[in-house]
Amino acid sequence: MILFDISEYKERVTKTKERMSRDGIEVLLVGDPANMNYLTGYDGWSFYVPQLVILGITEEEPMWVGRHMDANGARITTWLKEENIRDYSDDYVDSSMKHPMDFVSNILKEKGWVKSVIGVDMDQYYTTPLSVTKLRENLPNAVFKDTTGLVNMVRQIKSEREIDFMKRAARITEKAMQAAIDSTKVGVRQCDAVANIYHAQMSATPEFGGSDTATRPGLVVTTEKGVVGHHLPWSDKKFQEDDDVFFEISGCYKRYHAPMCRTVYLGNPPDTLKEFAKVVVEGLNKTLDFVKPGVSCEEVEQAWRKAVAGSGIVREQRMGYSIGIGYPPSWGENTASLRRGDKTILEPNMTFHCLEVFLDEGYGFGISEALRVTASGCETLANFPRRLFVK
Amino acid sequence: MILFDISEYKERVTKTKERMSRDGIEVLLVGDPANMNYLTGYDGWSFYVPQLVILGITEEEPMWVGRHMDANGARITTWLKEENIRDYSDDYVDSSMKHPMDFVSNILKEKGWVKSVIGVDMDQYYTTPLSVTKLRENLPNAVFKDTTGLVNMVRQIKSEREIDFMKRAARITEKAMQAAIDSTKVGVRQCDAVANIYHAQMSATPEFGGSDTATRPGLVVTTEKGVVGHHLPWSDKKFQEDDDVFFEISGCYKRYHAPMCRTVYLGNPPDTLKEFAKVVVEGLNKTLDFVKPGVSCEEVEQAWRKAVAGSGIVREQRMGYSIGIGYPPSWGENTASLRRGDKTILEPNMTFHCLEVFLDEGYGFGISEALRVTASGCETLANFPRRLFVK
Repeated sequence: MILFDISEYKERVTKTKERMSRDGIEVLLVGDPANMNYLTGYDGWSFYVPQLVILGITEEEPMWVGRHMDANGARITTWLKEENIRDYSDDYVDSSMKHPMDFVSNILKEKGWVKSVIGVDMDQYYTTPLSVTKLRENLPNAVFKDTTGLVNMVRQIKSEREIDFMKRAARITEKAMQAAIDSTKVGVRQCDAVANIYHAQMSATPEFGGSDTATRPGLVVTTEKGVVGHHLPWSDKKFQEDDDVFFEISGCYKRYHAPMCRTVYLGNPPDTLKEFAKVVVEGLNKTLDFVKPGVSCEEVEQAWRKAVAGSGIVREQRMGYSIGIGYPPSWGENTASLRRGDKTILEPNMTFHCLEVFLDEGYGFGISEALRVTASGCETLANFPRRLFVK
Repeated sequence: MILFDISEYKERVTKTKERMSRDGIEVLLVGDPANMNYLTGYDGWSFYVPQLVILGITEEEPMWVGRHMDANGARITTWLKEENIRDYSDDYVDSSMKHPMDFVSNILKEKGWVKSVIGVDMDQYYTTPLSVTKLRENLPNAVFKDTTGLVNMVRQIKSEREIDFMKRAARITEKAMQAAIDSTKVGVRQCDAVANIYHAQMSATPEFGGSDTATRPGLVVTTEKGVVGHHLPWSDKKFQEDDDVFFEISGCYKRYHAPMCRTVYLGNPPDTLKEFAKVVVEGLNKTLDFVKPGVSCEEVEQAWRKAVAGSGIVREQRMGYSIGIGYPPSWGENTASLRRGDKTILEPNMTFHCLEVFLDEGYGFGISEALRVTASGCETLANFPRRLFVK
C-alpha cells in the first residue's frame, strides 16, 4: 500500500530538511495529516486522536507517533522502519490524567533533543494549544518555533506521479459533476442529488475507485427566498422550476483532489444571469490563458480583474488557492492564494483551484477549474464544459 | 432553518453559564464546531477557517465570529441578533500579515473584557496554538484558562428533540448498514460497496434526507494477507471468498449521529470465528442489560469484562464513548468513556456508542450499538440484528 517510490519520499524529506536548515530548526513536529501523509505515506482516519510525525534533521527517516490501535496502519501505509513507528496506549485518549504529548516528550528526551530547536505548526489544526504547553513544560530547555506551513511549502510543486494522481481525481470529479447535473431536476430532492454525487465519487471509474473527499459536496440553491449562505448543508427539499443550483465538488484519488464548480439553472434563466455567466466564463478563460511560470499569484488575480473590467463585477474573495493532498476540513494546501499581495511566483507543477463564485447577487453563478502550471502555461486537470448549464 | 426552539438554545446557554460561573470564567471562546452548533445553531462547512462563538457571562446571547463569506450562513442557521454576528474580511484567510484573532481581540476590547477571565478550549482542534498566543499578546491583562470540554459536558444529556434527531440518524444507519451488507458480495469492489453506503446515508428515507457524517464509513477486510490496520481507507479490490468484512457506519441527521458496527463473512466462517462472535454478542447483550442510570462508566466496562470472563477475550481499548452532534474528524463528544477509571455516573438521555471491535485476531469481528440511557435502563437507537452476518 505504499503509493510512491521510497526515493520520492526521501526527496520530500530532503527538501523539508533544507527548509529546516534554512530556518534553524533541528527537530520538526508535524501534526497536519496531509503533511504526515506527504512525508511518510501514512493514511488513516485516526486524526481525531493526537498523532505526529517527528523529523530530526540528523535522522534518515521521520518517525510516526500515534495510538496503539493505529500502529498497524502505519506499518502498512508508510515506508518507515519498525523502530520509527511508536504508539501510545489507549488510556491516553480523551484522558484528563495522561496526555499524549508526555509520550512524545519522552521520545524527544530519548533522542537527546532536550535542548534542540523544535519546530511546531502553531497555526494549523491537529496540534492543540495544550499540546504545545505540555511540550514546553516537559522540555524546558528546548526552543520552540512556529513552523506553520513549512512542509506545506514543500508540497506546492508536485511530482509527475502526484500530477497523475490529481488527474485521476479529476476523472472522478468529471463523473461526480455529471451526476450532479443529471440529478438536478424539478421534483428531485437535494439529498438525492447528493446521494448520486457521492456514489459517483466512490465508484469512480472501472479502472480505479475513489476516496472520501476532504470537503463534502457543496450544493447551494441561490434562488430560494431570503439571504443565501455559503457552505450550508443541503436539505431534503425538492428542486423546483427556476432553481439556480451551484455545485462545488471534487473527486479524490489516494487523498489527492481536483475540485470544480459549476452552476445549473432549472428553466429559463433571466437574461441578466446569462450575461453575467458569459462575462465570468470569459474572464476565467482569459485568466487561464494568462497563467504561466514566472508570473506571480497576484498578477493572476490582476489578469482576472482586467478581464472583467467594465462589467461592474467585483469580488472580494481570493480567486484561488494551492491544492493537492487533503484531509478534512479542507483540500487547500494553506499556502499560496491568487489574490492581491501574494507574490508567490508560479512554477511548473504547481496546482491551484481557480474559482469565481457569486452567490449574493439575487441569482447565483459559480465556476472554477483545478489547474496545473505547465512549462509554458497551464492546463486544467478536468475536461468539462465551461458554461451555465440550463435544463 | 433554526432547528430547535429558541428556549432550548437559551437553556443550553444557561447551563453553560452555570459551569462558567462554577469555574470562574467570565468570557468563553468556543472554537469546536459541534459546540458552536450546540449554542447557536450555526451549521456550515466553514471550520477550515478560523471562527468562534464568544459567550460573555453577562450577555443574553452568544456572538458568532467568522469569515464575511459565512455571515449569511450564521444569519440563516442561528437564533442570534444581527449585532451578534460579526465577520472578518477575506484578507485574514491564510495570511501571514493579518490574523483573525486580532479581529476577535478587538471585539473583546470593545466589550470591555480586557481584564476578564477568558476560557479557551486549549485541547481541542479548531483553536490553534498561535490563536491563543495572539489573544494573550493583544489582551495582556486578561487571564486565560483552559476550558476544554466545558460545553461538551453540557452536551452529554440530550433533550427529547435531540433524542428524536438521533433516532432519525439511527433510521439512516439501519439503511446504510443494510446497503453495506447487501453490497458485500464476491466480485464487488470495496469502493462500489462504499458508494452504495453513501447513497443510502444521503437518500435516507422518504420522510427525511441525510447529512454527511463526521467520519467516513469504515470498512476493514480482516482476512486479507498480512497485518490489519484500523481506520485505513477502503480500496478498489474486489471482495473474495472468505473475506471477513468489518463495517463501522453512522447515519447523520442535522449533525446528530448514531453509529453502528457489524461484520459480514463471505463463505463458511471458521468455527473459531463463529464461537468468538457468539461470545462477544452475548457479552454485549449482557452489558446493555446492565446499563442504567446511577451506574458509572467504569462499571459498564466491568460488566462487559465479567460477561466474557473465562472466554480469554481481552480488549485494551475503551468500550465506548459519548456521542451526539459531530463534525469531522469525529462523532464522539470527547467526554465520558466506558472504561476503567471513568467514574461518570449515567443519567437518563446520555447517549453512547458502545462497541467491541477485534481486528487483530487472524479473523476479525466487531459489533456495536448506539444507546440511550432511559429512566430505568437503556435502549438502542437502531434496531438491527446483532450477529455475525454470513453470506
